[in-house]
Amino acid sequence: MTFLFNSDAERGAIFREVLARELPDLSFEIDPANVDVETVRYMITWLVPPDLGAYRNLELLFSIGAGIDQFKAASLPAEVKIVRMVEGGIVRMMQEYVTLAVLALHRNWPVYLDQQRQQRWRAIEQPRAQQRRVGVLGLGMLGQAVLERLKPFGFPLSGWSRSPRAIDEVTTHHGADGLNRLLETTDILICLLPLTNETRGLLNAELFAKLPQGAALVQTGRGPQLDQAALLAALDSGHLSGAVLDVTAPEPLPTDHPLWRHPRVLITPHVASVTQPESAALAVAENIKRHRAGLDPVGLVDRSRGY
Amino acid sequence: MTFLFNSDAERGAIFREVLARELPDLSFEIDPANVDVETVRYMITWLVPPDLGAYRNLELLFSIGAGIDQFKAASLPAEVKIVRMVEGGIVRMMQEYVTLAVLALHRNWPVYLDQQRQQRWRAIEQPRAQQRRVGVLGLGMLGQAVLERLKPFGFPLSGWSRSPRAIDEVTTHHGADGLNRLLETTDILICLLPLTNETRGLLNAELFAKLPQGAALVQTGRGPQLDQAALLAALDSGHLSGAVLDVTAPEPLPTDHPLWRHPRVLITPHVASVTQPESAALAVAENIKRHRAGLDPVGLVDRSRGY
Repeated sequence: MTFLFNSDAERGAIFREVLARELPDLSFEIDPANVDVETVRYMITWLVPPDLGAYRNLELLFSIGAGIDQFKAASLPAEVKIVRMVEGGIVRMMQEYVTLAVLALHRNWPVYLDQQRQQRWRAIEQPRAQQRRVGVLGLGMLGQAVLERLKPFGFPLSGWSRSPRAIDEVTTHHGADGLNRLLETTDILICLLPLTNETRGLLNAELFAKLPQGAALVQTGRGPQLDQAALLAALDSGHLSGAVLDVTAPEPLPTDHPLWRHPRVLITPHVASVTQPESAALAVAENIKRHRAGLDPVGLVDRSRGY
Repeated sequence: MTFLFNSDAERGAIFREVLARELPDLSFEIDPANVDVETVRYMITWLVPPDLGAYRNLELLFSIGAGIDQFKAASLPAEVKIVRMVEGGIVRMMQEYVTLAVLALHRNWPVYLDQQRQQRWRAIEQPRAQQRRVGVLGLGMLGQAVLERLKPFGFPLSGWSRSPRAIDEVTTHHGADGLNRLLETTDILICLLPLTNETRGLLNAELFAKLPQGAALVQTGRGPQLDQAALLAALDSGHLSGAVLDVTAPEPLPTDHPLWRHPRVLITPHVASVTQPESAALAVAENIKRHRAGLDPVGLVDRSRGY
């Protein structure tokens, strides 16, 4: 019975050690060429191997990242359970990144960094946190964790999800009408949605037009959710005041893309949150134990929702 | 009995309203030319008027900012009580700014912003918060409030002050030996010290040499505390990895100063924390009431310490 770690050797060494301790009966393999495919019960990977059908006894397919949009889940064998990565390291990194991005937009850093390039010393008007409404798209584990970290600063907080959710000190909305209400009352919009057919292209000109004048965007979802040309147009017209982008389409962002040079855009290369191997390996071991005990793994993907 | 508001008319209008409500017996004046100097019991100002000696019945001299180094307190009449601005608005803004600066340095934003200028998409290694030790110089109201906001992120926290202090979940040091111990174990150093004879030039080559390789600086104290040439040298040698500066010497920073263009330096124009007129006016009214009741005002300056 084999666990196939189909990713980089550095993180693989940590997974090997943790799984040997937690599940000593499992054999661990990092090189698909070395493995008898029929022995593989559990696999962790970023991309689905083209010969996945040959792994006839595969039971659990783990994504090494928080998202599973790269899996094209609909095309995978129905008997394989697909599991998103749900582990504390990803959550803590996303809390850091989104707090950083929200504070940077709140404190006008796109303008100040641009002024620095111009060697210009000029204070601009600073609204208080109580006047800066922050709205989160996506209220799963990441969205809720991010809201928790933003609470002490005093921003009025709201959140949107597909189905209703109640969160202390957060105004929550759901469904299509709820999305409009959130947008109308949001000065800093955070996207933490998974990539699905419903969210592809969601951050477009129509959505930006529903935000108040001067609103700003934190994009920590997936690149194809954002219409980048529409973002540039909304920034150039002054309707939006700034954006922090950790994901783009394509990635890497091409060298000559105008987003790189826009004075109101801050870009990081998809580093907001990456799986931390120690905590991820423990989460995977725990999920294999749950599966063996007849329980659903934490992070089990609902193929009808796509996440 | 007159309160003289010797600052901008916009904030003055708010002070006028609050003081009329809280202390209706006081007459409020914003133009020194309109006032009989002998009636002035209380004054708020940023700079001391050259004719301060003429205000013979002055009892309380309020600074409109958190610092009083601009007052040259030693030269002021001994019977006037000098009061720093201690109010919630200043504290909340400093919590925001320092959290933003610490997260920006922790998440390598100086490097990512520099890569953006080069249109370069490259992830760099990211230590966890638990591996990034944050040290605060100055454990007064601002230092303690900033530490409180940093706690949830999981950074190992330490702090230094002149005299001993105990703070939950923070390793505290004091005195000259304690400063050395803090510096040896600090990856991100935050300066929140007042400007005094002891702190002028404190952030110099000798101090930087005591920090670990790759450490970074958040300067939210006062410009003359930092040897800017020593900072540039430490950044260029690679001993320090980055700096966020909200104060410089002089201010504004001259257009041709090399700090503006340094790829590891982020500069804002002394905007980390400014007095919020509503809460400041209430704090001033409260202090006048305390003074009239025979109590020391909150923020009373000890002239022997200089803050």
